[in-house]
Amino acid sequence: MSIALRTSTVPVQGFRFAGSSAGIKKTGAPDLALAVSDGPAAAGGVFTTNIVRAAPVLVAAERVTNGIARAVIANSGCANACTGDEGLEATRMTTAALARAIGAAETEIIPASTGVIGALLPSRKIVDALPSLVADLSADGADRFAEAILTTDRGPKVAHARGQIDGRSFVVLGMAKGAGMIHPAMAPHATMLSFLFTDASADGAALTRALGRVADATFNQASVDGDTSTNDTLVALASGRGATAAGSKGEIHGALEEAFVGVCEELARKMVADGEGSEHMVEVTVSGVATDEAARQIARTIATSPLVKTALFGKDPNWGRLLGAAGRAGVPFDPSCARISIGNIAIVERGRAIGEAREAEARAIMASPSYGIDLVLGSGPGRGRYLMCDLGMAYVKCNAGYRS
Amino acid sequence: MSIALRTSTVPVQGFRFAGSSAGIKKTGAPDLALAVSDGPAAAGGVFTTNIVRAAPVLVAAERVTNGIARAVIANSGCANACTGDEGLEATRMTTAALARAIGAAETEIIPASTGVIGALLPSRKIVDALPSLVADLSADGADRFAEAILTTDRGPKVAHARGQIDGRSFVVLGMAKGAGMIHPAMAPHATMLSFLFTDASADGAALTRALGRVADATFNQASVDGDTSTNDTLVALASGRGATAAGSKGEIHGALEEAFVGVCEELARKMVADGEGSEHMVEVTVSGVATDEAARQIARTIATSPLVKTALFGKDPNWGRLLGAAGRAGVPFDPSCARISIGNIAIVERGRAIGEAREAEARAIMASPSYGIDLVLGSGPGRGRYLMCDLGMAYVKCNAGYRS
Repeated sequence: MSIALRTSTVPVQGFRFAGSSAGIKKTGAPDLALAVSDGPAAAGGVFTTNIVRAAPVLVAAERVTNGIARAVIANSGCANACTGDEGLEATRMTTAALARAIGAAETEIIPASTGVIGALLPSRKIVDALPSLVADLSADGADRFAEAILTTDRGPKVAHARGQIDGRSFVVLGMAKGAGMIHPAMAPHATMLSFLFTDASADGAALTRALGRVADATFNQASVDGDTSTNDTLVALASGRGATAAGSKGEIHGALEEAFVGVCEELARKMVADGEGSEHMVEVTVSGVATDEAARQIARTIATSPLVKTALFGKDPNWGRLLGAAGRAGVPFDPSCARISIGNIAIVERGRAIGEAREAEARAIMASPSYGIDLVLGSGPGRGRYLMCDLGMAYVKCNAGYRS
Repeated sequence: MSIALRTSTVPVQGFRFAGSSAGIKKTGAPDLALAVSDGPAAAGGVFTTNIVRAAPVLVAAERVTNGIARAVIANSGCANACTGDEGLEATRMTTAALARAIGAAETEIIPASTGVIGALLPSRKIVDALPSLVADLSADGADRFAEAILTTDRGPKVAHARGQIDGRSFVVLGMAKGAGMIHPAMAPHATMLSFLFTDASADGAALTRALGRVADATFNQASVDGDTSTNDTLVALASGRGATAAGSKGEIHGALEEAFVGVCEELARKMVADGEGSEHMVEVTVSGVATDEAARQIARTIATSPLVKTALFGKDPNWGRLLGAAGRAGVPFDPSCARISIGNIAIVERGRAIGEAREAEARAIMASPSYGIDLVLGSGPGRGRYLMCDLGMAYVKCNAGYRS
C-alpha cells in the first residue's frame, strides 16, 4: 500500500470550509475557522491528557463519543481554558448557534479553541460572525480554515494524502496549528489543534481508536517546549462520499490509517519546524536499549533538555549534553558503548569523542534547517525517536511577552 | 535547637584551604581548589543519579565508602566526564600525586570536577600546580577554594552555621558552585559541587546517610534547567576537632544535621539565584494534594516548564501556564479548586482569575529578585516545593556558545 503525500490543501468530497476574523484577536487577524459536512460524517477524536482540560476539550471529547458529527468550529486567540462553568456555557452557546445555522443537532458540532489560557471565549463575537462564515463555506475554503486557527505560528500547516481502498481512491486532508505549548500527549478520550477530513468511509468509534494509534506514532513523538497543552485536539471526520470500504473488525481500513499517519507525521514536522522562535527541526533517534519505550523515553528527555536545545541553537555538536540528558532519562545503558552521529557524521564512538575534525563536519550540518541526530546506546532491540527544535533568543522573546 | 547562619566563610578547626590557577581554563581564572584535613577526617558523600557518571564521581563515590578522607581536590574548567578509562586514569594520577605531597593514602583523596563534558582532565597541569597549592594551604584559605570551583557562576557561594552539641560549639562551612546543568538528583551512592567542612565529630557512614536526607531536603528541590549533571557531588568532611558527641544509633547528631540542612538550603538558594542568565529566584510551593511526593512532583514540573520560566522572565503573572504545567504533572487534582498567589497576592480563586488589578499587583512583586508562588490545589495534606529561576535571553546566550 502506498500513499501519495502533498503539502497543500485539496478539496474533500462532502466537506466545505471557511475562515474569517471574528475580532477575537486584537490584531484583527483571522481567528474563526469552520468546516461543515454536507451530511452526517463519522467522527473520532483524541484529546490532551492534561488534568486541566479546556471547556472546548470537555465538550468535544464528550461529543465524539457519539461517532457522528456535522461540523468543526475552531477559534484562535482564546483557549477558553480555566474558565469554569462560564467557559462551558460560552462554548455551548456558540455550538448551539452553529447547529441552528446549518440545521444540525448541537451534539454534532465539535468545538476547539487555542490561545491565551484564562480568557473567557467571547461567544457573542463568534455568534455574530457565524452567518457570514456559513455563507462563505466552499469546497476550496480549506486554506482560509488553516489560516484562521493559527496563533504564534509563522504559517499554516497543511498536508493531504491520496490512497486507494479496493480500487477506490480516497483523500485525507489535514490542517494543524501549533508552535508553542507543544508536547502532545493525547489519549483516546490530545495546544496543537489538528483536523483531518476524508471522503473515505469509517466508523466513528473506530476512528477514535485509530487516532489514538496515529497520535502515538506522530504528534506524541514531537515537542517544542515540553509543555503539554490544556487544549490539544486531534479530530477526524469521514464523509464516506468516496464510497470506500469502511474497514473490518471494528477498525478503520489500513490504507486510511496509513494515510492518517502520513498526513499527521507531516503536520507534526511542520509544527516542530515552526516551533516558537526555532531555526532547526531535529529528529533524534535512539536505539540499542532494551525496549522501544525506553528508547523513546531517552529521546524525549533529550528533546526537552534546555542545554541540548540551546546547543542546537548555537550549532554546537555538544555531545556531552546529549549523553548527559540520556543519562538522566531513568533508563539503564552503558555510556561506554555509546555511538552518536549528527546527520551521517559519527562524532562519538564507544562513549568517546572521535575528534575535532568530525565535529567541524557536524557543525556544518547543524546549520541546516532540518537534520537528524542518532544515538546508538548498546545492542538492545529498542528503538524510539522524537521530533524536537532548538531554543533560541526568539523563543524567549515570544514567550516573555505573549500576553501583553 | 537553633543554628546561626551566615553567608561568609569561617575557619574550621582541622582544615586548611587553597585555590589557584592551574591553566585548565583558557581564561587563566582560578580552576584548582584544595582542602586538606590535618588528620584523618570522617567523610561521607552523595553523588549524581545520572547513568553517565564522570570519572571523578566514580572515584569519589568509591572512596567515601571508606568513611575516612584527608583531602578534597576539585577542579573547574573540565568535567572529565565521558572520558572512559583515560579519564579514570587522569583522576587517579592527580589524587596519587596529592596523596604523596601531603603524606596520605591515595584512597583518602576525594576528587571532583566541573566544566565541559567530554574533555579529558589535564592531569599534568594539575600535578605541576600541586606543590605551590599545597604550600599555600591556610586556615583562612576557604575564599580562594570557593573561587576556584566556579564555572558559569556570577560569584562564589559560601555559607556557614554555628551550633551546639551538649554545650560544645561546632561550625559547618559550606562551599558550592553551580549555575547551569542544575537539577540535582543525588542519592547515597549530585554539576553542582558542594563541600561541607565541620569540626564536629561524626562517623563516615552516618555522614553519607545524613547527606542523602540533607540533599533530598535542599539541593534535590532546586532546578536551574532540569538537566541533572554527570558530576553532581555533595561531600562532607568532619574533623572532630570540636570534640562534640558524634551522634547515636549510627546517625550524626541532630544538631549537626540541622546545620547541614541550613547551610545546604542557603547554598541551593544561591545556586538557583545565580542560575545561568537568571534574574529571579522563585520558590514554588504546592499544597492540598494527596501526598508530599505528589506536591513535589507538581512543583518540579512547574519549575522546569519553559513557558512558566519565560513568563517569570517577562514578569507576567501568567497563571494559565502555572495551572497548565501543574495539570501535566501526572498528579490528580481538581483545577476548579485551585488557588494561586504570587508573593502574598492571590490572583486565582477556585480555578478562575480574580482580576486585572490583582495581576497588576503581582506583576510588581515579580520585578523583585526573589519571591514565592503558592498553589493550593485542594484540601489534601500533601505539601512540596521547588526552588526555580526564570529563563531569559542571557540563558540562551550563555548556553548557545559555552564550548566555543
